[in-house]
Amino acid sequence: MAKTNPGRFFEDYAIGDVLTHAVPRTVKMGERALYHALYPARHALYSSDQFAQQCGLPFSALDDMIAFHVVFGKTVPDVSLNAVANLGYAEGRWLHPIWSGDTLRSTSEVIGVKQNSNGKSGVVYVRTKGWNQHDTVVLEYVRWVMVRKRDLDRPAPETVIPELAKVVDPADLVIPKGLDFTRYDFDLAGEPHRWGDYEIGEQIDHVDGVTIEEAEHMIATRLWQNTAKVHFDATFRPDGQRLIYGGHVISMARALSFNGLANAQIIVGLNGGAHANPCFSGDTIKVWSEVLDKAETVAPGVGAIRLRLVATKGGDPFRLKGEDGKYLPEVLLDLDYWALMPT
Amino acid sequence: MAKTNPGRFFEDYAIGDVLTHAVPRTVKMGERALYHALYPARHALYSSDQFAQQCGLPFSALDDMIAFHVVFGKTVPDVSLNAVANLGYAEGRWLHPIWSGDTLRSTSEVIGVKQNSNGKSGVVYVRTKGWNQHDTVVLEYVRWVMVRKRDLDRPAPETVIPELAKVVDPADLVIPKGLDFTRYDFDLAGEPHRWGDYEIGEQIDHVDGVTIEEAEHMIATRLWQNTAKVHFDATFRPDGQRLIYGGHVISMARALSFNGLANAQIIVGLNGGAHANPCFSGDTIKVWSEVLDKAETVAPGVGAIRLRLVATKGGDPFRLKGEDGKYLPEVLLDLDYWALMPT
Amino acid sequence: MAKTNPGRFFEDYAIGDVLTHAVPRTVKMGERALYHALYPARHALYSSDQFAQQCGLPFSALDDMIAFHVVFGKTVPDVSLNAVANLGYAEGRWLHPIWSGDTLRSTSEVIGVKQNSNGKSGVVYVRTKGWNQHDTVVLEYVRWVMVRKRDLDRPAPETVIPELAKVVDPADLVIPKGLDFTRYDFDLAGEPHRWGDYEIGEQIDHVDGVTIEEAEHMIATRLWQNTAKVHFDATFRPDGQRLIYGGHVISMARALSFNGLANAQIIVGLNGGAHANPCFSGDTIKVWSEVLDKAETVAPGVGAIRLRLVATKGGDPFRLKGEDGKYLPEVLLDLDYWALMPT
Repeated sequence: MAKTNPGRFFEDYAIGDVLTHAVPRTVKMGERALYHALYPARHALYSSDQFAQQCGLPFSALDDMIAFHVVFGKTVPDVSLNAVANLGYAEGRWLHPIWSGDTLRSTSEVIGVKQNSNGKSGVVYVRTKGWNQHDTVVLEYVRWVMVRKRDLDRPAPETVIPELAKVVDPADLVIPKGLDFTRYDFDLAGEPHRWGDYEIGEQIDHVDGVTIEEAEHMIATRLWQNTAKVHFDATFRPDGQRLIYGGHVISMARALSFNGLANAQIIVGLNGGAHANPCFSGDTIKVWSEVLDKAETVAPGVGAIRLRLVATKGGDPFRLKGEDGKYLPEVLLDLDYWALMPT
Repeated sequence: MAKTNPGRFFEDYAIGDVLTHAVPRTVKMGERALYHALYPARHALYSSDQFAQQCGLPFSALDDMIAFHVVFGKTVPDVSLNAVANLGYAEGRWLHPIWSGDTLRSTSEVIGVKQNSNGKSGVVYVRTKGWNQHDTVVLEYVRWVMVRKRDLDRPAPETVIPELAKVVDPADLVIPKGLDFTRYDFDLAGEPHRWGDYEIGEQIDHVDGVTIEEAEHMIATRLWQNTAKVHFDATFRPDGQRLIYGGHVISMARALSFNGLANAQIIVGLNGGAHANPCFSGDTIKVWSEVLDKAETVAPGVGAIRLRLVATKGGDPFRLKGEDGKYLPEVLLDLDYWALMPT
Repeated sequence: MAKTNPGRFFEDYAIGDVLTHAVPRTVKMGERALYHALYPARHALYSSDQFAQQCGLPFSALDDMIAFHVVFGKTVPDVSLNAVANLGYAEGRWLHPIWSGDTLRSTSEVIGVKQNSNGKSGVVYVRTKGWNQHDTVVLEYVRWVMVRKRDLDRPAPETVIPELAKVVDPADLVIPKGLDFTRYDFDLAGEPHRWGDYEIGEQIDHVDGVTIEEAEHMIATRLWQNTAKVHFDATFRPDGQRLIYGGHVISMARALSFNGLANAQIIVGLNGGAHANPCFSGDTIKVWSEVLDKAETVAPGVGAIRLRLVATKGGDPFRLKGEDGKYLPEVLLDLDYWALMPT
């Protein structure tokens, strides 16, 4: 048993530590085919090489959430194996497209620790970076998790809570090199709605729904080499249910938002996100969006739009929290992100 | 809600309209790997580059039904989102192989409209074409569907019913450039039976069966970017069942027919087809075939065979319709197609 | 019905016969993506081109068990369609890496026959070889199965039982050309444990578990073009259960053994194996390993380790057989193999 990885506990994290996560991954079009089979992903820029070329890119990149999942999956054995809860995300930015054949690896720097008052666990903040084979950072984000202590007698470390931006400044968003939406083909993209057609405060019910199956979320989660027991082993939780990886809900929600946001092609920023309630097999996911902000960019024909993306397993759209300020029980995900659209 | 696609209703189709369907798709070997994992596809020409080269092709093409599903899937948001029923197919022809890396898109021309006597719906006929990135038509077929009216007060359009061939004339079948079966390796193909060994009227029980799972039909249907709610959302139908995409049954049936028709390598014509009864998860699909016709071709060593392919979810083989002339309740599919075999 | 393959019966095998199995298969990165989505496969050498290059290989090969499954799957229609039981494996060796784009085919030579005393069945021994498109043997192994007789009146053939090595001699293991573990990156591989850190007799509980789904084992089994009815057709067995392909359990077990054996990168020998009890959907697979032997190799920094890999569906680890010498009912797999590790 000494040879298996017990995971890190709260006292194993010190400010400034940089963790090198294991098992780099070469991703190709097989991973994309699976992604498009597991989620109803239809954004044209990630579906057609010719569409991408007409937008100034050399060819179609892998979906932005593939980058996120691969980078995130590698952190699980070092960051969240003993996690009690995934508490939040901030300052996420996609910095470089992922092309077929790229090899991704991840590192995480510990940027915050705070022991809980019960002395049994604490919150750890890490800034994770995903790297390609050219040592270019392709993605970065901050994530904080609640982690158990192994040795309850260990004194609490000095509390360090990082200052995190509530929203990624649109001036800091990185636009893929060469991107140009001035010759954007709205017919082939699937909807006529431009950046200028969306108003701040506008809400969109995306209408479509998908009922979740055990086989699908496990196939997806394994594809990202995320091996947290709780997603795979029905004997692990007392209730015999397999908890669905939160990222599966994010990708399903993002794909379902195509119907009404077909032109929100590229995810470039992750401002925040909450996995409000657990998702299980048999739940039917539906989603709605709200336009939170808009910003101009320097790229030709390209605007940025800040969106709230909410996934639910029932109930009416556009309801998020109860009078107590807590998420309603049917809300699964509340995500806040920046996307790029044709102006 | 104004931003989501409500789909077209009967009165939105006018003779001569050409619909450009959205979201072109670059298909590669990842899609093929998934196809061969979802269906027991074993035709050697689509499995081995070397086998294909020995038959005069540059390498193995993507399975013919992949072309059909991708082209068909793109039409769903514009043709069948409000469809009550998929009524028939005719004049289908595969015109060019699909190679790994090709980008497919679809267009449909409205060639017939006929309002139903109840005034609530009508039948729309479209001729759909699939195109590759070189603007070559790779596939075409006629399909007709019953579509709801939105505005019941709108006067009926002038009835136009296209004249459709009952059977694609074998002289019009297009044989892949270079195809030559004179050095065909029957051992590697899996069966010794040549075109000359099949007799018109001969029936074949393909023996094998596959029990259908929710995860599999949803993965398959999403892979073709077909997003009709009824296939994915268990809350959509009053009975809580997800209706399985008819194309999933076609591909399963075609693959199961390998056992007895291993040398019917290439699908080149679709004469007609009926989805006789709905298919649901848990059904066990078995198939039988009947030789309807045979024709010679100009390609070396290549014969054409016209086959009826019937998929059932129980019952004995070779039974199709009851005394009332209606399909038996266990019949799922009755397909009429042309394939190419070594003579 | 005459056109379908009835499979071979005991009396159809004669010593010295060489069977050419049908349907060669070109395998690419799509097959690998699926493999890594179906199993929690994380060995770095098969995940990252850069990691493979640092170990002296041109790029990342397809997982060793992909080679096994593809080669094995082709033999099913000729060897095990009428098999009552898969009895054993021996003298398995991986002889050449499988690169993306390779085309695999299989042949089997009959090397043993022994009619059972009941006269209704017999044991057939075959030596199967997998070949790539350059006519190089990439894998070979001996397998013996119990097969039904068709004609009970046929006299028994002369009994021939091949002499099979209990263990592949480590001197006969073939190391991939160029392999060099002297610059092996243990951080990226995921564990610090070297060949020298493992002791003969040491046992490892791999801790993780996966609950099996119907959709997943069927997708996997079809991917290898293994079409034995019993895996797919819920109406085939009287109990309505689909028997899971034993190879699915092998691959799941091998992948789960990563946690504790992350550096046992390459499978090079298969000494033996028993599918101790049947596996069905809903079973939760857990695994443990035992170090059976160790050997040095001539490749730089490379050691060979002989491992017992046991998969169970419950019970405590390290328990294998009861007092009666029979496998405990929760044991699914008992596999004996050689792997290569950094010294």
